[in-house]
Amino acid sequence: MNKVLAINAGSSSLKFQLIEMPEEKVLTKGLVERIGLNDSIFTIEVNDEKDTETKDIEDHGVAVKTLLEKLLKTGVIQSYNEIQAIGHRVVHGGEKFSDSVLITDEVVQEIEEVSELAPLHNPANLVGIRAFQEILPNTPAVAVFDTAFHQTMPEQSYLYSLPYEYYEKYGIRKYGFHGTSHKYVSVRAAELLGVPVENLRLISCHLGNGASIAAIEGGQSIDTSMGFTPLAGVTMGTRSGNIDPALIPFIMDKTGKNANEVMDILNKESGMLALSGFSSDLRDIEQAAEEGNERAELALDVFAGRIHKYLGSYAARMSGVDAIIFTAGVGENSTAIRERVLKGLEFMGVYWDPALNKVRGKEAFVNYPHSPVKVIIIPTNEEVMIARDTVRLSEI
Amino acid sequence: MNKVLAINAGSSSLKFQLIEMPEEKVLTKGLVERIGLNDSIFTIEVNDEKDTETKDIEDHGVAVKTLLEKLLKTGVIQSYNEIQAIGHRVVHGGEKFSDSVLITDEVVQEIEEVSELAPLHNPANLVGIRAFQEILPNTPAVAVFDTAFHQTMPEQSYLYSLPYEYYEKYGIRKYGFHGTSHKYVSVRAAELLGVPVENLRLISCHLGNGASIAAIEGGQSIDTSMGFTPLAGVTMGTRSGNIDPALIPFIMDKTGKNANEVMDILNKESGMLALSGFSSDLRDIEQAAEEGNERAELALDVFAGRIHKYLGSYAARMSGVDAIIFTAGVGENSTAIRERVLKGLEFMGVYWDPALNKVRGKEAFVNYPHSPVKVIIIPTNEEVMIARDTVRLSEI
Repeated sequence: MNKVLAINAGSSSLKFQLIEMPEEKVLTKGLVERIGLNDSIFTIEVNDEKDTETKDIEDHGVAVKTLLEKLLKTGVIQSYNEIQAIGHRVVHGGEKFSDSVLITDEVVQEIEEVSELAPLHNPANLVGIRAFQEILPNTPAVAVFDTAFHQTMPEQSYLYSLPYEYYEKYGIRKYGFHGTSHKYVSVRAAELLGVPVENLRLISCHLGNGASIAAIEGGQSIDTSMGFTPLAGVTMGTRSGNIDPALIPFIMDKTGKNANEVMDILNKESGMLALSGFSSDLRDIEQAAEEGNERAELALDVFAGRIHKYLGSYAARMSGVDAIIFTAGVGENSTAIRERVLKGLEFMGVYWDPALNKVRGKEAFVNYPHSPVKVIIIPTNEEVMIARDTVRLSEI
Repeated sequence: MNKVLAINAGSSSLKFQLIEMPEEKVLTKGLVERIGLNDSIFTIEVNDEKDTETKDIEDHGVAVKTLLEKLLKTGVIQSYNEIQAIGHRVVHGGEKFSDSVLITDEVVQEIEEVSELAPLHNPANLVGIRAFQEILPNTPAVAVFDTAFHQTMPEQSYLYSLPYEYYEKYGIRKYGFHGTSHKYVSVRAAELLGVPVENLRLISCHLGNGASIAAIEGGQSIDTSMGFTPLAGVTMGTRSGNIDPALIPFIMDKTGKNANEVMDILNKESGMLALSGFSSDLRDIEQAAEEGNERAELALDVFAGRIHKYLGSYAARMSGVDAIIFTAGVGENSTAIRERVLKGLEFMGVYWDPALNKVRGKEAFVNYPHSPVKVIIIPTNEEVMIARDTVRLSEI
């Protein structure tokens, strides 16, 4: 039996799951928040019981130590040796990493080099990697990149229509994100359909606070809605998605803000929050819309409308589609959004059952049995995907 | 018999057509170039004979006088009174103008007010309007806006996912362009199909050096690819179309350019020019691709690929499509681009005949007779559309 720790380190947080492989059974999971701040919060869930503790945790090293001690204390493991490998989520792998990779000094350096492309995320991910290296130096560790799955995109999809040397010199291209999630649900969809993923054309809608759509042909991502950064694509919780690029200097001029300040607005004060005028949380917005709030209604229309258009676009990209997948918080749970997204796609073979669509948060087919295009809800599981890659690459 | 002058004034140019209505017969057409510069060029075509003259033309007033004198001299008209109305192309009508309008002092002021949204074009259009007002003060004139046709777009299409006050305060929204062309071809498509335009869902591809796609439902534009400015949407001759907005500060940072300089690159040094590395002219690029130039091949793939995806997207937008229209220089003439754009759309009912697609520059159906979705090449005619609106609104 192999136990794998799946880690997602942020600048002041550390999410973890301990997973038994190959059974893919979650033994425990939790979260350390406010690392390096006062009153850090440590939460761990064992056997459906949640334990929360507030104490100062100075840095990620202390967070890791606290976590490991907890694992012993709760009896989830008897010794650190039981943790046979660690899988780290890393946001950006640039063009270097088209798959997960066993972490070596060279790999750490390469993740560092690509940090320029994800200045908020990669350094934090590295802090997590280094903290475990110090405390468990002999445990193999694997990096699993958010971008890797999309590295199969052809030039036609990933190149912007910008001066070519921007690509060569600065790495300006579409990278795409949520790759681990898109990969997980595409593999799972193939299982549920009983068809090899190599024979499928899938559109995967990862709809959470961040949202991205991917066109997956033969198991490979061939196009995706996010771009050079996770700002691009559809409307999101607080992100604008695509806008006319000429708006940036116009907004700068009108508001007196500089380009980075405008980016902050596009990332943090736009999207559903801006459209609704009161919340980025879809549950709030849905409720307000039901109560007759027009701006909430508008926000739902815009959000769903953008995704709806991507479905047509990516069906065209693959000359048709065999199944549409909904995943992540909104995709798994929002009947209303799926309804708006799916409405009026009969022309491309999508026939779905409003009754079946009432499901929340579990695997389910939403299409009528006769529908040429299947519609599937699949709760995403990035941690399991990380654990699988960790087992595969650490050869435990 | 009514003669209408259709005018398109640029900052240093004046294009004209004298059209006999309601026959829509072009009596003469031509162009004044390099106005205000040395060696201005006056070109006029009468009865298929072209006459070019080089002389200094100081301003648009002189250009108009020269034009009118030529019309007399060549015998196209016997007296200025025969010109019963003038139709002026105006690029931007903002939210004020959802139709063409008879020009009054108030209208001139409103066009001025909206100039902020089209700082390169509206002032030049106004110079043309004023030059004719001075010389033919009693001839009714009509303004025909590039944006007006798209004013029927619903909020869901025209609103960006940006702070709502940007829309209210600064007029930040999608306006769309090429409206006169999209309207002309949609009306013409309905005639060719023998179906009232009210009953049709059309996708119109205006593909020239600038390019835009429009979703036209029941004769009304409900979505279009250009945005707040003509930079947005698909890849164009020298324009980037949509890119990740976060690229702008990144490019500024890398190149040391300011936001306006980056805009210049996105407008003038991107698109097909940047992808191919040698030309923005599709004819050059097609030829190079045939000779095996890989970057030319790439440029064609990217350009056609973006349009191809819009076809799927706009079919989804309208829950299906009845006809796809190709117009403007590239749309009318490029067999190769239409081929790449149309390939693999059988899933949405598009069956087209490669043999029929070999046509250039004339009205033609490209679909197989049994195809549920028709594909039609329609040479655009913005001047005729201007003349029609001019007759309708000047009530001559």
